[in-house]
Amino acid sequence: MTTEQKLDAFLEAHLDDCVRETARLCAQPSVSASGEGTLACAALVAELLGAHGLAVETVPTAGNPVVVARAAGDSARTLLCYNHYDVQPPEPLALWTTPPFSPTLRGGALYARGAKDDKGELAARLWALEAVRAAHGGRLPCGVLFVVEGEEEIGSPHIVEFVRQQRDRLRCQGSLWEEGGASAEGRPEMVLGRRGLLSVELAAETLTVDAHSGGAHALPNAAWRLLRALATLKDPAEHILIPGFYDRALPPSPLDLELFEAMADPEPALREAYGPRQFVNGLRGRDLLRAVFNPTCTIDGLTAGYQGPGLKTVIPARASAKLDFRLVPDQDPDEIFGLLQAHLRQAGFDDVVVTRLGAMWPDKAPADNPLVQLTKTTAEAVYQQPYELRPLAGGSSPVYAFAGPLGGIPVVAAGVGYGHNRTHAPDEHVRLVDLLNGSRHIARILDGFAAL
Amino acid sequence: MTTEQKLDAFLEAHLDDCVRETARLCAQPSVSASGEGTLACAALVAELLGAHGLAVETVPTAGNPVVVARAAGDSARTLLCYNHYDVQPPEPLALWTTPPFSPTLRGGALYARGAKDDKGELAARLWALEAVRAAHGGRLPCGVLFVVEGEEEIGSPHIVEFVRQQRDRLRCQGSLWEEGGASAEGRPEMVLGRRGLLSVELAAETLTVDAHSGGAHALPNAAWRLLRALATLKDPAEHILIPGFYDRALPPSPLDLELFEAMADPEPALREAYGPRQFVNGLRGRDLLRAVFNPTCTIDGLTAGYQGPGLKTVIPARASAKLDFRLVPDQDPDEIFGLLQAHLRQAGFDDVVVTRLGAMWPDKAPADNPLVQLTKTTAEAVYQQPYELRPLAGGSSPVYAFAGPLGGIPVVAAGVGYGHNRTHAPDEHVRLVDLLNGSRHIARILDGFAAL
Repeated sequence: MTTEQKLDAFLEAHLDDCVRETARLCAQPSVSASGEGTLACAALVAELLGAHGLAVETVPTAGNPVVVARAAGDSARTLLCYNHYDVQPPEPLALWTTPPFSPTLRGGALYARGAKDDKGELAARLWALEAVRAAHGGRLPCGVLFVVEGEEEIGSPHIVEFVRQQRDRLRCQGSLWEEGGASAEGRPEMVLGRRGLLSVELAAETLTVDAHSGGAHALPNAAWRLLRALATLKDPAEHILIPGFYDRALPPSPLDLELFEAMADPEPALREAYGPRQFVNGLRGRDLLRAVFNPTCTIDGLTAGYQGPGLKTVIPARASAKLDFRLVPDQDPDEIFGLLQAHLRQAGFDDVVVTRLGAMWPDKAPADNPLVQLTKTTAEAVYQQPYELRPLAGGSSPVYAFAGPLGGIPVVAAGVGYGHNRTHAPDEHVRLVDLLNGSRHIARILDGFAAL
Repeated sequence: MTTEQKLDAFLEAHLDDCVRETARLCAQPSVSASGEGTLACAALVAELLGAHGLAVETVPTAGNPVVVARAAGDSARTLLCYNHYDVQPPEPLALWTTPPFSPTLRGGALYARGAKDDKGELAARLWALEAVRAAHGGRLPCGVLFVVEGEEEIGSPHIVEFVRQQRDRLRCQGSLWEEGGASAEGRPEMVLGRRGLLSVELAAETLTVDAHSGGAHALPNAAWRLLRALATLKDPAEHILIPGFYDRALPPSPLDLELFEAMADPEPALREAYGPRQFVNGLRGRDLLRAVFNPTCTIDGLTAGYQGPGLKTVIPARASAKLDFRLVPDQDPDEIFGLLQAHLRQAGFDDVVVTRLGAMWPDKAPADNPLVQLTKTTAEAVYQQPYELRPLAGGSSPVYAFAGPLGGIPVVAAGVGYGHNRTHAPDEHVRLVDLLNGSRHIARILDGFAAL
């Protein structure tokens, strides 16, 4: 029997245990947005991690505690598994077939809030760990470190500070992120990186009170003022005009360009989902993929003056816009925020108030990193189909809180998703087949990590 | 006894009658916004006009009826008096010292909704008419035509159509508008014209649904699209860039420029009221007055995407702006609307949908028009202080519905306001001294109009 066969046999034999453990976690509400059950769930997670033979510590933060658990291995190498025990609010309740916190098996899947995101994923990892131990006579080839936070669904507001404080104790050589599995199109896949984010509000105030538009020849309009400021940020071809903005922006590597070439043309699905008349800059086909390496400046919202039905002839005294910049490696949102402020001053808009709303950093593993390659080859063995590596996701994630501060470690993902889990929605579920295959994949990564 | 002395003596003797008639009109609610009492008030107005010896007709419209009344005079010249019988809603009721539809005399003033706007004004005119008759042995030197509409407070939606249909029967050589008297600074004054208005909504739609801003490198943003379209309308120096926009815009006449020179510097009051950091184009002093001859393009409101607290990283699928253009003589909002549409098409924004929300035309009497001069000299005789002629008001009014269609007649105003009547607000009132002086002024205009 090969090691792979042993892993698979163990996991098949213990699938019911894995489902049971997922259900137990899901029966405990843990809604970070409302606070419902989060502390009780942290305690349950600590209990389960301990029962699986890990040394557990519950680390307080300014928000919900982080459960940290470790198991030593035969090598000096350690793999960090990131998960979270909090879930999205279950509302609207009326749309659930069975109650969100009463896990129910039907049609080969377990239905509950958190079944996939992220409780099923955590259970699959714990059973993968058991399988590796079983295949090696109770020993682990590498050290394993679990970090299970409780605020992922509200934007991980304390994870950066947590990693900063715990950095020495989180030493590792690679990390397994949550949210792995297959895409909505059913392709097993993984993204190598995520863009950073700088979110700001720009506000203009030209008058102390709104005025009748009959005075518009004399009284300045905050909406026009804001619009003038916004127009200095980006040209019509989407090139961002803030001096220095692109200085640290890295282009895709030759390997990234090869990966794009191997990916499916995203245009039909984007047309179907969003029905644009045309795409940004008239892009077509795989150029829509490659453009993810172009950092963006998005107006998320605009507000000024009268927005009701009909007309009101008014000069708005105040106007504001929410913006986000999606940043590519190695742009730094702190630096971009300074450049933005300097640009507005320089362009004569020192009256426009810039407020920082949030920041996230980009991160990216090279496509040829050994952990990335291990994740790919083991996935193809489990899923029996090509594994897609996507160079960079358009969105952002707190991966950056770990990747950079822990020494530029590679971060990969492997999990139990199949693209239609109704994550964050009513009738969230995880398929048993995905719990099994996800844990088979994870076990192979744990098994191979020591030798990289 | 001069004619003026006779007019004054009659009006002093009948001031109580004028107050009583104002009170009777005010006791009848006539809220056009809600419909409360409007038909009953139209009937009351018709009864009063008949009692004053006019031939009355109540003309139906698609909205509230217009009461039309005429009295023949010894000359072929006719003066049209425009008034309205509807009033603003009385809310908030708790802020009235005495109930809005229970007219109450205190401190030399009559308090009630409509006391000044526009029922006191109508009563003052009727008693001015009586005074002129009394001074001329029961005859009138000129014909008088009353047009009393019932929808002024909701924007006179049917007055244009009414004038178009009744044009032949509304023949006249000049008009006395409502809203005359003194400014908030206590100066008796009159505006010679009002700007026109074109009100539109511009809407951009780039996607069928909002998208996550992680897709901003590919999916077009409606807010940016709208902003690009808006930026083509006006340069930073407030010059409107729509080709042909200024073709019919008349500059102030040399006489208008003299009038501006004689007016008070508006800057201190504007600074006090609106606290701008600076005025449009850095204007100062009386340049703020002269700029009323610059037509304007105002953003009245902007709406797109997420406007709540904090951040939401979203690409808005839809964005819209409400705009108004204040137009100077002889610009035509119909024509400007066509130019705006053509400009947006020409500039590549044929996807931006332009909806017309409203239109009003500019109007202006020359400063040296005989009726204007009569209004000025008689006002100075009554008020014993200089009468200010303001070349052009920044706002708009349905005066245009009469002035142009009736053959370019001059439209003047004379009334009972003193600038602090709390028009449209709780505790609206008219001072008895203003009812008297207003009617003295109006009587002099009626008396002198035949000989112009």
